[in-house]
Amino acid sequence: MPSIVPVILSGGSGTRLWPMSRPERPKQMLALTAEETMLQLTASRAAGEQFAAPIVVANARHTDMIEEQLAAIGAKPQALVLEPMGRNTAPAIALAALVAPQPDAPLLVMPSDHVIEDVAAFRAAIASALPMVEDGWLVTFGITPDAPETGYGYIKVGEEIAEGVHRVDRFVEKPPRAAAEAMLASGDHAWNGGIFLFRADAFLDALAQYEPKMLEAVRRSLAEGERAGTQVRPSARAFAEAPNESIDYAVMEKADRVAVVPVAMGWNDVGSWDALHAISAADEAGNAIRGEVIALDTTNCLARTDGVRIAMVGVQDLIVVASGNDILILPRGRSQDVKKLLEAMKD
Amino acid sequence: MPSIVPVILSGGSGTRLWPMSRPERPKQMLALTAEETMLQLTASRAAGEQFAAPIVVANARHTDMIEEQLAAIGAKPQALVLEPMGRNTAPAIALAALVAPQPDAPLLVMPSDHVIEDVAAFRAAIASALPMVEDGWLVTFGITPDAPETGYGYIKVGEEIAEGVHRVDRFVEKPPRAAAEAMLASGDHAWNGGIFLFRADAFLDALAQYEPKMLEAVRRSLAEGERAGTQVRPSARAFAEAPNESIDYAVMEKADRVAVVPVAMGWNDVGSWDALHAISAADEAGNAIRGEVIALDTTNCLARTDGVRIAMVGVQDLIVVASGNDILILPRGRSQDVKKLLEAMKD
Repeated sequence: MPSIVPVILSGGSGTRLWPMSRPERPKQMLALTAEETMLQLTASRAAGEQFAAPIVVANARHTDMIEEQLAAIGAKPQALVLEPMGRNTAPAIALAALVAPQPDAPLLVMPSDHVIEDVAAFRAAIASALPMVEDGWLVTFGITPDAPETGYGYIKVGEEIAEGVHRVDRFVEKPPRAAAEAMLASGDHAWNGGIFLFRADAFLDALAQYEPKMLEAVRRSLAEGERAGTQVRPSARAFAEAPNESIDYAVMEKADRVAVVPVAMGWNDVGSWDALHAISAADEAGNAIRGEVIALDTTNCLARTDGVRIAMVGVQDLIVVASGNDILILPRGRSQDVKKLLEAMKD
Repeated sequence: MPSIVPVILSGGSGTRLWPMSRPERPKQMLALTAEETMLQLTASRAAGEQFAAPIVVANARHTDMIEEQLAAIGAKPQALVLEPMGRNTAPAIALAALVAPQPDAPLLVMPSDHVIEDVAAFRAAIASALPMVEDGWLVTFGITPDAPETGYGYIKVGEEIAEGVHRVDRFVEKPPRAAAEAMLASGDHAWNGGIFLFRADAFLDALAQYEPKMLEAVRRSLAEGERAGTQVRPSARAFAEAPNESIDYAVMEKADRVAVVPVAMGWNDVGSWDALHAISAADEAGNAIRGEVIALDTTNCLARTDGVRIAMVGVQDLIVVASGNDILILPRGRSQDVKKLLEAMKD
């Protein structure tokens, strides 16, 4: 059995953590939760004996930044696949599966911008999944939920088919609040965290069955593309023809041998400033502060700057983020409204 | 009788409106309330037929800025007295009185950083005062109070001695809240706005009587100083010996023939961001916004920037001011705490 090949997806354009995250430097390239960037943390999380060098699939405009960040932690990708445009996760993973070193290599597909605090639990979940993966199953990791989140998809966990491995009863799209609460209460649902483990050939076989045109477009984009060293540049003309679809929609919800490994591993997708505040170390006043910030009589605030100096007094429950020529100010709980601000600024 | 000589005091160092106001460019040099700076508004307020060219007393470090701002509105000071250091208002006014063109010239002493919305009322108050001034009285203008402010001194208004002109019963230092409320309720108190009208010789005579050493030091600072064109540069060594005292303490509270002209003229000393918010035009959501600011679902906020772009959503009753490399954030009603922040930043 070949080593596990980490597949790191760096496709996010990062609007939700504006103004630090920007198209030219999205969330995964930022050191939001540690000294390392989220991309570096992701690569480090799947490095070591049982892992081969990673395949990274990224936006071509970030090539230099990705190579520098990986080099800085001594990670050498076996391939850096540079997407000419974003086509969602299914085509991105197809690119990785087609450049994998062996057809039967297990691919550990990971978004590049998630936090996993308990790496040991993650590794144990991988170990549980591996026998089924070798047997050709498509495995997703189901995050044990601790709140009725409406921003994630859910997975209904079915019967156990091997130790720690369950059939997927069904995938549930981002639910309304009441449904989320019911699923949380049921105890048999998990969040769909977008982390997968399967053999390259098993994924490609499923894609051939359910999305043959996508597979064909991706295959052709590689045939007509260029390769220089580890850099793989698919043809834009061919890749543009791949349908813009998620792996969930294109494959996981349709395929037969789909399993879920439920795991509690301190997972967080850091999908908003509120989410970052929730996982940040706070001082005794409840403030999570980074950069040049003076805060007096201030409680339960997130304040970060890589630009101007922030001076605040008498403030509670506020999110304040300064970066470059911008500063964002909103109350805790409102960080989903960053999108509204960005839309307003376009006008 | 000579024309009235406006004496514009530009001594404030401007910490209360940080970060826009800074030692190198204090409040009076900023366009806070209009297109013109507060210095320009002050000069314009006392220009016209009955006024001579002004005498400006300022910190020497602001020489160029003051000359530029006055030139921009066509105001030509007859003298620009450049203080080598700040010694409070009594020595500053003594400098002006000593460089006045005639001993009996009426001096209209005005801080350079106050707002007066109703200039006609101001002019009428000056007209009321003028006969008594010609007769040698020292006149202060008493601002009709509309709130129990604890940040101003008060004047107890005594008997009327000429139309619109009253004896000063007594001066009251910045009072505690209860005393301020009692004075507001009494109806016979006015705020001490720091605006005066008196003959140069009347003021100098009083100074000779109550603060002879101050007068002597100021006189010597001019004798030992330099004059080039309109620029007057007192000797620092001599001027440093002048006691650091306000005109109220040095003269007004002690002299006999002191009168007050009560006047309601939309006066505001713009002594804090809250004060500025109170006098600023607000949009229908109650927001007073200047500069590049995007505010969604935001009410009753003051937001100003001459630096970074401010994006805010879901915020109420907040003061946000960005200037240079700094941004200030505090709730309305807390703007006196700017001083605390500045102290904290020194550490």
